[in-house]
Amino acid sequence: MEFVLGHGTENDFVLLPDADGALDLDGPDGAELVRRLCHRRRGLGADGVLRAVRTDTPAAADAGVDGAGAGWFMDYRNADGSIAEMCGNGIRLFARYLVGAGLAAPGTFGVATRAGVREVTLGVEGDVTVDMGPARVGAVSVANVDGRDLTGIAVDVGNPHLACVVEDDAELEALDLALAPAYDAALFPHGVNVEVLRPLRAGATRLRVHERGSGETRSCGTGTVAGAVAALRAAGLDAGRVTVGTPGGTLLVTVGAGAGSTTTLSGPAVLVAHGQVSPALVPAGMGAVPTR
Amino acid sequence: MEFVLGHGTENDFVLLPDADGALDLDGPDGAELVRRLCHRRRGLGADGVLRAVRTDTPAAADAGVDGAGAGWFMDYRNADGSIAEMCGNGIRLFARYLVGAGLAAPGTFGVATRAGVREVTLGVEGDVTVDMGPARVGAVSVANVDGRDLTGIAVDVGNPHLACVVEDDAELEALDLALAPAYDAALFPHGVNVEVLRPLRAGATRLRVHERGSGETRSCGTGTVAGAVAALRAAGLDAGRVTVGTPGGTLLVTVGAGAGSTTTLSGPAVLVAHGQVSPALVPAGMGAVPTR
Repeated sequence: MEFVLGHGTENDFVLLPDADGALDLDGPDGAELVRRLCHRRRGLGADGVLRAVRTDTPAAADAGVDGAGAGWFMDYRNADGSIAEMCGNGIRLFARYLVGAGLAAPGTFGVATRAGVREVTLGVEGDVTVDMGPARVGAVSVANVDGRDLTGIAVDVGNPHLACVVEDDAELEALDLALAPAYDAALFPHGVNVEVLRPLRAGATRLRVHERGSGETRSCGTGTVAGAVAALRAAGLDAGRVTVGTPGGTLLVTVGAGAGSTTTLSGPAVLVAHGQVSPALVPAGMGAVPTR
Repeated sequence: MEFVLGHGTENDFVLLPDADGALDLDGPDGAELVRRLCHRRRGLGADGVLRAVRTDTPAAADAGVDGAGAGWFMDYRNADGSIAEMCGNGIRLFARYLVGAGLAAPGTFGVATRAGVREVTLGVEGDVTVDMGPARVGAVSVANVDGRDLTGIAVDVGNPHLACVVEDDAELEALDLALAPAYDAALFPHGVNVEVLRPLRAGATRLRVHERGSGETRSCGTGTVAGAVAALRAAGLDAGRVTVGTPGGTLLVTVGAGAGSTTTLSGPAVLVAHGQVSPALVPAGMGAVPTR
């Protein structure tokens, strides 16, 4: 079984080339394979798995994916084996892989995901930009983070966020984001990701995130977009470009003017290694596995 | 640059095949390469790097290695780029790699390390046994672990250990081993690794370890041997076989009778993946890097 390992701002992924969609990740053996690959000591170690499947396959159709001109479907799985719809850092690595492997030409193209086709833009090297879709601003709310009540704004970027602008870098750094913040469960019935960031200065902010179910992470694509929106709002702006420093690296977000306009996320996507997974790691029930 | 990734009881390693000893890990670029490879989000992620070099090379001679019949030198580096002499879990993975790659025949053979030649025994699959040399029992001493004074015995297995037998499994599990235990600095001028274990029952114990400089780890080869010696002593025995359950998996230790007799460590060594490291990960100053 072939793999590619890489990361975007330290959000890391095992990519499985599976053009024909031969690999079944949906059953218990598939979920077990994902967990084994993502294990940080017994496996390759990653936050998730990205399966690269052509959109004209039965596997893509079974996943309900409408290619709509996109050649490739990013089948994303969390490290626990569960399905996730989209991942802003993952799709940038996915695009970097397609271009590096000669499966897509540099420039702008669509990648199919369970959240629809997303447009990516990249050269033969350097940063990768992804269209993250509109960010919808909701109510003002309060989260209790590390014993402190922080006021933020709800931002929906396909998933729910509460982005809280604090006083300065010192306050940002002092917070312990390991424990889940308390939040308004009526406003966020499915939980919420909480961003904490400092005010915009010369077009830049610094941001930390607590991802629901994961704790504090090095970087979160949708959280970075939500944070950029909150940073602009706190500066009296509806749109603009924001450089966001996260613990895992620096990202650039653009927020378009007017309701329903889109956002983009740009940043590095780094291929670390590629090779073959040992057969011992593949659950016996998986049957034949793809190799190129 | 080729790599092999694997682990022994969740002590994980990047192995670099470098038969001719062409790879310079001694300079600042070499140490940086090791750190990049071992980084758990920007690299392959590992506790250390094992470079596989033939003993008849200038590189092995430069390292002061006397092959003494051993065909291969295990050049071991910690994740921070520093040199370490020996690693009981690492050498088992090293031996599994040699046999799997057809570079050594199954059976018993020597592997050269900076601590001398160590004998390994393995089949074409299954557990790998390594001769860990004599374990020298020293003074009784006390470590303060998680606010509790625990009495143990000093055991030298090439590096210093204090192995403390506690009352039972409940006491073992309740301890927080994240913080460095306080110890007798006069007895251990270079620091000490502290093992905590429960009394022997039907030839088996359970053990946790705080490795100096690393914190609590999933498994430690020399610490497992030191713990087995302490478990035997606490049962009134000088020698025997002990099954040791560690957080990362189960190991078997034999302790020979009589002063100066050797110890062995047996357990799994699992190859996870192999492939090529992306050129972007290799520091520019490294120059040419080996490929097979």
